Amino acid sequence: MENFTYCTPTKLIFGDGAIKNLPEVLAPFGKKVLLTYGGGSIKKIGLYDTVKELLKDFEVYELSGIEPNPKYTTSVLGGVKICKEQKIDVVLAVGGGSVLDCSKAICAGALYDGEPWDLITYKVKAKKALPLVDVLTLAATGSEYDSGCVISRTETNDKVGYLDELLFPVASFLDPKYTYSVSRKQTAAGAADAINHIMEQYFCAKHSTLADGMCEAAIRSLIANAKIALEEPENYDARGEFMVDCSLACNTILSIGNSYSGWPCHGMEHALSAYYDITHGEGLAILTPRWMKYILNDSTMERFVSFGKGVFGMDPALSDREIAEKTIDAVYSLFESFGMPMHLKDVGIDETRLQEMAHHIAENEGLDKAWAPLKENDILEILKASL
Amino acid sequence: MENFTYCTPTKLIFGDGAIKNLPEVLAPFGKKVLLTYGGGSIKKIGLYDTVKELLKDFEVYELSGIEPNPKYTTSVLGGVKICKEQKIDVVLAVGGGSVLDCSKAICAGALYDGEPWDLITYKVKAKKALPLVDVLTLAATGSEYDSGCVISRTETNDKVGYLDELLFPVASFLDPKYTYSVSRKQTAAGAADAINHIMEQYFCAKHSTLADGMCEAAIRSLIANAKIALEEPENYDARGEFMVDCSLACNTILSIGNSYSGWPCHGMEHALSAYYDITHGEGLAILTPRWMKYILNDSTMERFVSFGKGVFGMDPALSDREIAEKTIDAVYSLFESFGMPMHLKDVGIDETRLQEMAHHIAENEGLDKAWAPLKENDILEILKASL
Repeated sequence: MENFTYCTPTKLIFGDGAIKNLPEVLAPFGKKVLLTYGGGSIKKIGLYDTVKELLKDFEVYELSGIEPNPKYTTSVLGGVKICKEQKIDVVLAVGGGSVLDCSKAICAGALYDGEPWDLITYKVKAKKALPLVDVLTLAATGSEYDSGCVISRTETNDKVGYLDELLFPVASFLDPKYTYSVSRKQTAAGAADAINHIMEQYFCAKHSTLADGMCEAAIRSLIANAKIALEEPENYDARGEFMVDCSLACNTILSIGNSYSGWPCHGMEHALSAYYDITHGEGLAILTPRWMKYILNDSTMERFVSFGKGVFGMDPALSDREIAEKTIDAVYSLFESFGMPMHLKDVGIDETRLQEMAHHIAENEGLDKAWAPLKENDILEILKASL
Repeated sequence: MENFTYCTPTKLIFGDGAIKNLPEVLAPFGKKVLLTYGGGSIKKIGLYDTVKELLKDFEVYELSGIEPNPKYTTSVLGGVKICKEQKIDVVLAVGGGSVLDCSKAICAGALYDGEPWDLITYKVKAKKALPLVDVLTLAATGSEYDSGCVISRTETNDKVGYLDELLFPVASFLDPKYTYSVSRKQTAAGAADAINHIMEQYFCAKHSTLADGMCEAAIRSLIANAKIALEEPENYDARGEFMVDCSLACNTILSIGNSYSGWPCHGMEHALSAYYDITHGEGLAILTPRWMKYILNDSTMERFVSFGKGVFGMDPALSDREIAEKTIDAVYSLFESFGMPMHLKDVGIDETRLQEMAHHIAENEGLDKAWAPLKENDILEILKASL
């Protein structure tokens, strides 16, 4: 086992009607709330009105229109400006991973005198951040239960991950009913994102029986519940389990004691969404089986075999090579069965900028130090195989 | 799924040599430290000297001799007295579950003006508690990662559980090497305790694929690593995995969203240890298979079958009844294979006080509201079957 320090101080408040506790969770921080949200889906499902009613004794400011792959120049800086001008006490993010990620960057930037990009790119370490509370409306990224965010800066094709323990939400409200209206496309993309989060922790050098078993259990649960949710979008238990699966998928509790994998698929996908603004989970669904196929060899084999048996119940009587190859096929077929695009060209990416993206990834993502190291040419081959 | 609120703010600091960070973890709370420990095993393994050296810039007071099944009148009140007289800033518990549990009660009692027993029995809700840091030397109870403690009051044969979110340790240091000297008996008892913790969460009415899978994974890991640790007490990875298994076993993360089971075996065992001061894990190993056998019926069957397949790999071709019965046998054989006493008479308990204990349990543990309800006569039958 690797040495580790683990602490997730976020309070998960789960269940039908849990949101009624919102005022008492916010109250200790003060009266001035910045409510952040996206394109307005929270108005369609009535959640905006519910939140406003619950906050009637607070002074509420709003930042709306936060984009998928949230943008630094518009949303982050926009939110920071409101926080500074209005002396906001607490940020309330209502939405999915993009809204939460953007709000985390706002919380850090709000209490920093310089350019927030310097925090996001680790040029400067934040000393403090505003408290963040969230109401989740899309199960996918796990941002509601981790200390990270991913912010895009379109001008420079940057999409960067920023982690700091100051960014853990104080509390996350998880009511499965707020995800009933999530589309098939977004449900599938959320499942692919969360499954990939766990795979990025599983495929590594040092691992334990506990971590393997928890990771496999969470992926089996994601698969089972995503299938139900795609067919029955208002199935409470399936939406609920799926939500909790996603929350645990990204905060390292499932892989506690494992060594660091390098998160290669996320590293590559960040470039795809930075250059083409595609849906993150869709990019991951396309890349993951191609990455698996590319890195499979005798020295990586054990992880594929373990994963195939634990997640897909592969027959132990088969040879290791057969199990590994069937496992790659099973991952591909799984995402395909969700109705996801399985080729880059399906999401509008052709060969034009593959070389440029491969170079960008190799320069910025450190994948030469991943568990299965990837240099620029390896990355280019994986991108080409994904076309 | 059940509604739930989950938050474990404790920082786990795991690994060989992790203790070097002890001064920086303690420093924010102040200079006055109450060091609590048990019978002196920490001196034998050199940990006492290490801690004292690390704390050379602190003002250290000591409470030693904390008993297994820690006692209210001697240890808890003794510690509270020192805290109040010396105006202690932070308690540092170095030991196993008994030392930690006792220290939690001390932390609450230290900042309460009345009789601490009123806190422990929920007559009064604590408003604050001293911060607790611990260095774990025995993997078993999970006290290092939960908000509970169990305190015995010999005069009244009471052994009561006390939970309060104020009791979460601030930080728990987990170095597998500090458990190398743990005896076979205590290693086995720790395994039985942690396995039972998970079973008490698994055998319930509402459960999810995620919780089932995580619980099964953790028990499989406990079994695998306990077997290694019993044969190779200085196997770092086995001791390390075992330690983390135990930490996660009792804080409800593994059963997140499950309904409450009533913790029947713990309820019964608390009386055994209160009346006879036996080792907690040994009491659980004796009671668990007898409880399973007693409650097995058509309506409880599903849990047995699921558990048998997920933990012991029972053949799905067998009938449910066969799987359930083989699962009970497997649990019994497992504890027996650890070399544990499997009858009450092996730990010095005869029939003399069974009726009295059954009555005490029925009056105090609320097991008539457990998932498989137990009245006084049911409890007596289980105790008799355990003789």
